[in-house]
Amino acid sequence: MIKKKLAELAVLVEAKIEGDAEVIISGVGSLASAHSGQISFFDNLKYRSFLKTTQASAVILKEAYVKDCPVNVAKLIVTDSYYAYAKIAGVFEDLKPIVPGIQATAVIGEGCHIDSTASIGAHVVIGDGVTVGARTCIDPGCYVGDRCVLGSDCHLWSNVTLYHQVTLGNRVMIQSGAVIGSDGFGFAFHAGVWHRVPQLGGVLIQDDADIGANTTIDRGAIEDTVIGQDVKLDNLIQIGHNVRVGDHTIMAGCTGIAGSTELGKYCMLGGGCRLAGHIKIADGVILTGTASVMKSIAEKGMYSSGMSCMKHSEWKRNMVRFRHLDQMMKPFLKNQNINEKEKEDDTE
Amino acid sequence: MIKKKLAELAVLVEAKIEGDAEVIISGVGSLASAHSGQISFFDNLKYRSFLKTTQASAVILKEAYVKDCPVNVAKLIVTDSYYAYAKIAGVFEDLKPIVPGIQATAVIGEGCHIDSTASIGAHVVIGDGVTVGARTCIDPGCYVGDRCVLGSDCHLWSNVTLYHQVTLGNRVMIQSGAVIGSDGFGFAFHAGVWHRVPQLGGVLIQDDADIGANTTIDRGAIEDTVIGQDVKLDNLIQIGHNVRVGDHTIMAGCTGIAGSTELGKYCMLGGGCRLAGHIKIADGVILTGTASVMKSIAEKGMYSSGMSCMKHSEWKRNMVRFRHLDQMMKPFLKNQNINEKEKEDDTE
Amino acid sequence: MIKKKLAELAVLVEAKIEGDAEVIISGVGSLASAHSGQISFFDNLKYRSFLKTTQASAVILKEAYVKDCPVNVAKLIVTDSYYAYAKIAGVFEDLKPIVPGIQATAVIGEGCHIDSTASIGAHVVIGDGVTVGARTCIDPGCYVGDRCVLGSDCHLWSNVTLYHQVTLGNRVMIQSGAVIGSDGFGFAFHAGVWHRVPQLGGVLIQDDADIGANTTIDRGAIEDTVIGQDVKLDNLIQIGHNVRVGDHTIMAGCTGIAGSTELGKYCMLGGGCRLAGHIKIADGVILTGTASVMKSIAEKGMYSSGMSCMKHSEWKRNMVRFRHLDQMMKPFLKNQNINEKEKEDDTE
Repeated sequence: MIKKKLAELAVLVEAKIEGDAEVIISGVGSLASAHSGQISFFDNLKYRSFLKTTQASAVILKEAYVKDCPVNVAKLIVTDSYYAYAKIAGVFEDLKPIVPGIQATAVIGEGCHIDSTASIGAHVVIGDGVTVGARTCIDPGCYVGDRCVLGSDCHLWSNVTLYHQVTLGNRVMIQSGAVIGSDGFGFAFHAGVWHRVPQLGGVLIQDDADIGANTTIDRGAIEDTVIGQDVKLDNLIQIGHNVRVGDHTIMAGCTGIAGSTELGKYCMLGGGCRLAGHIKIADGVILTGTASVMKSIAEKGMYSSGMSCMKHSEWKRNMVRFRHLDQMMKPFLKNQNINEKEKEDDTE
Repeated sequence: MIKKKLAELAVLVEAKIEGDAEVIISGVGSLASAHSGQISFFDNLKYRSFLKTTQASAVILKEAYVKDCPVNVAKLIVTDSYYAYAKIAGVFEDLKPIVPGIQATAVIGEGCHIDSTASIGAHVVIGDGVTVGARTCIDPGCYVGDRCVLGSDCHLWSNVTLYHQVTLGNRVMIQSGAVIGSDGFGFAFHAGVWHRVPQLGGVLIQDDADIGANTTIDRGAIEDTVIGQDVKLDNLIQIGHNVRVGDHTIMAGCTGIAGSTELGKYCMLGGGCRLAGHIKIADGVILTGTASVMKSIAEKGMYSSGMSCMKHSEWKRNMVRFRHLDQMMKPFLKNQNINEKEKEDDTE
Repeated sequence: MIKKKLAELAVLVEAKIEGDAEVIISGVGSLASAHSGQISFFDNLKYRSFLKTTQASAVILKEAYVKDCPVNVAKLIVTDSYYAYAKIAGVFEDLKPIVPGIQATAVIGEGCHIDSTASIGAHVVIGDGVTVGARTCIDPGCYVGDRCVLGSDCHLWSNVTLYHQVTLGNRVMIQSGAVIGSDGFGFAFHAGVWHRVPQLGGVLIQDDADIGANTTIDRGAIEDTVIGQDVKLDNLIQIGHNVRVGDHTIMAGCTGIAGSTELGKYCMLGGGCRLAGHIKIADGVILTGTASVMKSIAEKGMYSSGMSCMKHSEWKRNMVRFRHLDQMMKPFLKNQNINEKEKEDDTE
């Protein structure tokens, strides 16, 4: 069990201490469940009542909330409490140390350059001409196709698949079951039959990107599909071929992005969004969960679609009205400024 | 080929027989396609016409429908025909018997306790300090991380991934490609960059739960993510970190549940539902397919959102009206009891 | 690097050449990015400006657009430019040749018939009684269950799972992470507990079908789940048990189809569609992305549902109105021809 004096943790996050700097911390806990010996954090006003009654030995918080925290609890006073918590939680994360070397059951292709500090797990299969950088860790059961290039300090968790010609920057983390570089979905319809369009591009994932479990990223048709620096993708996301995701953009689970769409930097997508293909989303766009985007968005800001649920009987009645909305509205529209022409422009 | 006398099957499901108790049954079939030697069942009124013309040798049904079934077809009369069918189908399920022992190509870590009756398939990789209970079957290609605890009679189909510190009760079944214990999606934004928040909890899956193919369940941030007893999850479902799913709750495919949300017991979710994070759903809530839930639901009952499809041209016209719904409504609302204040409360 | 004279490519696609038939082509590029030595294609009017300034050495296009293409660029004149491009791109696709034989680390069950020209990769596990046809390629980490039958010229990319009793026709391609034949989602509720209904059918995937990465197809309850000839499924699609997908139907990513639904031939589904169970979709139906289908569709044509996004503030206002649509409409409906009875029929 990892143990630290509060004073040591304070140094790590550049915090001011109020209370017992010598108290020993051996783990983290939520405000509601932490017990003596644990450190907690206060970041969400919703949990203010828990702050007042917490049993934690120490709490990370902003100056302004010190007064709400029991006197006998030590305080680490910071300006960004969630970020400080993230750093401190890292101290107590009990991850297996990387074991450099190639496990006996791994199968390595020809012409590979695998750094001696990299870790290649049991039953991993690596194709020909692959480069693996320093301290990169490839867990059991992964497949890495021909001519892939992995930077340093990457981590592929178990059962990840990289097709051929996938390039990872440094510190890229890929959760289990993710598939990177699968064929883009391109078919030419000719003489009553679908013909596969060869997908000749690869995938480029830049530094510090994270890819979630069972997420899929297709290879480009001609050029690479590109995931920018510090992009964070949650689980079960589909990224179509030729998509380009700008740096620092973050997406929650179950989102799907169709081919050739470009997202700007610092976008935030809630869960279950749907983006059409061949559109462009500006920097800083926020899509709330389940938003469906059919056309380009040129201006930053928050956008939404979808409907939140209601009692089934009520929904059913409204839905019937919706089906006749246009017809019902017609008589009342004469004296309003709704431009009929918008119909054509609006919902392509 | 498995063969049973109808009388034997009747004992299994405590049925009354009408007709030839000695008829030999060698398999099951649907009412429409069953042939002589097969048993079928009648449970859905939609298929009543097939009951009248079925070629099955026997049919499982309720007393009330005996009169609709041909005289020459034997009847197993029960009170719950679908449940009786489930038990009888089990007789004819030709699953491979579990082969106890550890296949030569499996790689087992240090300090594991693997019951001698458990079955560990080819190319399985098991980490350190893992416990595997009696008759639990881990199929080829699975990965089981450090300190996992698997109860007895569990079944992991091929290519399942359990991260470290995942706990399964007894009789838990996990379909192929599922990923349990992947990192929760937690990042702290600081100085223009996303910082990973270590996910220190695990996942607890309780007795008799079933997890579908390619479903993902994230590990908790601090405490465990919890899947209750007898919970049934279909394929391609995403369960965020810290979620708690109550006992006997069932979810159809493609549903996504964001972090820290709690579902009660005996809930039923149709396919493709979306639940926001940090909300609470009462026991016995039914969500119809594609329902999107943004706020807590305190009362049991059926809830819906989403829109069923219509001809594209019609949809397009209605959609234009929807975009101007607020604007169009204003002039007509003066004499109605729609409280403007609701705007603020209603669609957070 | 593969190099071809333009004249050779022209023969392949039966094109008329305008310009230098002797120019050497060593790859493909988009109109915007192609450089000297590459061939491009013009198929989408949106990119007309790029045609005028392309640096490609040759362009595939229709007769009508020759005048828009620079004089110094050679032209391959065809009637179907995207199909011609697909064939030419295939010339430059640098896929690893199939290596016949069984890798040493593969584990093969008893009673299998594996064609001598088939390729079985590292760490593949094949069950008992499996048939693998000529030139079929099973990549590393795949699992193929008992009694599966794979035709000739199939390709399973890495980490694909086929449960027992899955049948593939010829030229079936399955992308990584796909799971075929997982248990259908069938449970009988009895005495407060869910009881598994054994899923006794298999899965049949017919000639020339393509299955996307991490897509899941459940086995049938009694009869097989059937994917027709030339069906193209993108990534992260869920196909429930007993579903039948007609020949040449194509589906974009993230679509989910509930059990026992039948789709006709030549249907096209955009991304993220949701289809209820036990319904029937006619031949030639087009569903736009995110369409949700609750009832059968008997007539071919284009159908839609869902809502495209708008500014959050605007959406919020409209959404409030939607919640009261039925109530608001009542006073205005007396003099309109909206049949109240439709309520009952329309939104089951």
